[in-house]
Amino acid sequence: MFLPVSKAQLSQTQQLISPHIHKTPVVTSRMLNQLAQADLFFKCECLQRCGAFKIRGATSAVLSLSLDEQAKGVVTHSSGNFAQALACASTALNIKSWIVMPKNAPSAKKMATQGYGGEVVECEPNLKSRETTALSIVERYGATFVHPYNQYTVIRGQATSAMELVAEVSKLDYVLAPVGGGGLISGTALACAHFSPDTKVIGAEPLGADDAFKSFHAGAIVPQTNPQTIADGLRTSLGDLTYPLIKELVSDIITVTEQEIVEAMKLFWSRTKIIIEPSSAVTLAAVLKHPDVFAGKRVGLILSGGNVDLEKFFI
Amino acid sequence: MFLPVSKAQLSQTQQLISPHIHKTPVVTSRMLNQLAQADLFFKCECLQRCGAFKIRGATSAVLSLSLDEQAKGVVTHSSGNFAQALACASTALNIKSWIVMPKNAPSAKKMATQGYGGEVVECEPNLKSRETTALSIVERYGATFVHPYNQYTVIRGQATSAMELVAEVSKLDYVLAPVGGGGLISGTALACAHFSPDTKVIGAEPLGADDAFKSFHAGAIVPQTNPQTIADGLRTSLGDLTYPLIKELVSDIITVTEQEIVEAMKLFWSRTKIIIEPSSAVTLAAVLKHPDVFAGKRVGLILSGGNVDLEKFFI
Repeated sequence: MFLPVSKAQLSQTQQLISPHIHKTPVVTSRMLNQLAQADLFFKCECLQRCGAFKIRGATSAVLSLSLDEQAKGVVTHSSGNFAQALACASTALNIKSWIVMPKNAPSAKKMATQGYGGEVVECEPNLKSRETTALSIVERYGATFVHPYNQYTVIRGQATSAMELVAEVSKLDYVLAPVGGGGLISGTALACAHFSPDTKVIGAEPLGADDAFKSFHAGAIVPQTNPQTIADGLRTSLGDLTYPLIKELVSDIITVTEQEIVEAMKLFWSRTKIIIEPSSAVTLAAVLKHPDVFAGKRVGLILSGGNVDLEKFFI
Repeated sequence: MFLPVSKAQLSQTQQLISPHIHKTPVVTSRMLNQLAQADLFFKCECLQRCGAFKIRGATSAVLSLSLDEQAKGVVTHSSGNFAQALACASTALNIKSWIVMPKNAPSAKKMATQGYGGEVVECEPNLKSRETTALSIVERYGATFVHPYNQYTVIRGQATSAMELVAEVSKLDYVLAPVGGGGLISGTALACAHFSPDTKVIGAEPLGADDAFKSFHAGAIVPQTNPQTIADGLRTSLGDLTYPLIKELVSDIITVTEQEIVEAMKLFWSRTKIIIEPSSAVTLAAVLKHPDVFAGKRVGLILSGGNVDLEKFFI
């Protein structure tokens, strides 16, 4: 089976980014194992630099540029974790970054991105404005555009999380990852295809933003319209590079309700004392929902991040 | 200087309990270091078995009994972390445990204790009733009474947290621990006295439950009356074994306000994605409050637990 990303490329990417990111711990919990009737292995990207896995892809993208390209800086459009990840990765390497964000993005996100050294450029809250504003930065400064997920250098970086997981935990029957734009799930699927071919990769998604589920079953990209979910990292549509990888390498997509997501999140918080965001909890929610599939199995779960808006949840 | 617990006893205790407890990670955060202008090293007992350091003391106490004593079981009075710790430690060693709790203790605490295999025995919500009820179990079953903190076998167990910390992080200028009954702070002070004598040990306490501060300055135990603090683990008075150790070995006690405790707790949650309970946050609050003392220093903080009542904080 021909894959657009080779085993050698994944290994090279891992070597390239390792000095700049954390090799995050894999955590287990007796109580959660009892509840799920399975052996669960949680890859804690919530404990990653910048609080989410995206620093892997951002670092990979930036380090893949030539020195000339690096000198002119990078630009992306994102109001989520990728904004902070690209700003953080770039600043650490003395590279200029512009982050295009809708003007109605939460000020906490803007400030966090600026805190990491990125220059926030505001746009109107629609896709066209995000794209044209990013393009204007490319044209004006010669900056390189880095897509938050639909780009092989980014996907290769995201793959390194699952690479570490399967190197540390042998004979996983399943690995689950949440599905937003598809960068993490496609990277995870590539990592397993090359390094743990007997492991089945399953995507987990909110029912209220189930474009990946629909696309998977339709055999073509179904764009996400009007997403309704607390999992703010998972509202985007799939891309034309991530979708084919999902179609080829992922075994299934499981959807979960909002209530299941929040319950799984609070359960994980209280049992392990580690904070995960709603987008990460979809994986645990999916496992707890399907003992028919997962009971008695060895299951890896990529916990994508811990950047919860605490003010939203706390009194 | 004569100490009632020797270096050899501490080492033996560490060997005794190690197979039964987690060697918890020491965590650092660039952002918190910048904020405090110091090098902070967080000993994460929030990631300990049962979510708090007390399993160390409970395990030490139970393993210190003879086989005959173990066969008759153990009893304590506690509605806090020690209740669960003793139940958990005992059950793991097939030892019967009775936990005396006030009838108005939160049902979540009772259920958690029962979940660990302890038998909850209710009493009236006052100290006399707790003590007489515990005594009745001793008389009826021949069980051994284990004090939550004011007992050398328990104190030795609690000391192993700081022992691990100073073995892992060299040249600490300070180690801070929260002060409730004094088991953790006195164990910490003993550990440093024997294994890191140049390290100063400082206690951190809520202003609303500042009996240790008062006792420290009065030169005698001042009992805690009517404690008013969200730090539910720190409401008890010092004991006649813990107080002398504090007086002899601790350099200072710092008090912090309720607002400082909650802000430090949320700050730690959001920066590290690790959940600590209010009783643990008093240490970070104390450090942030006194850059005059801690700036430029290497500071260890024992984060005692992560058993927050999430329902209290979450919407």
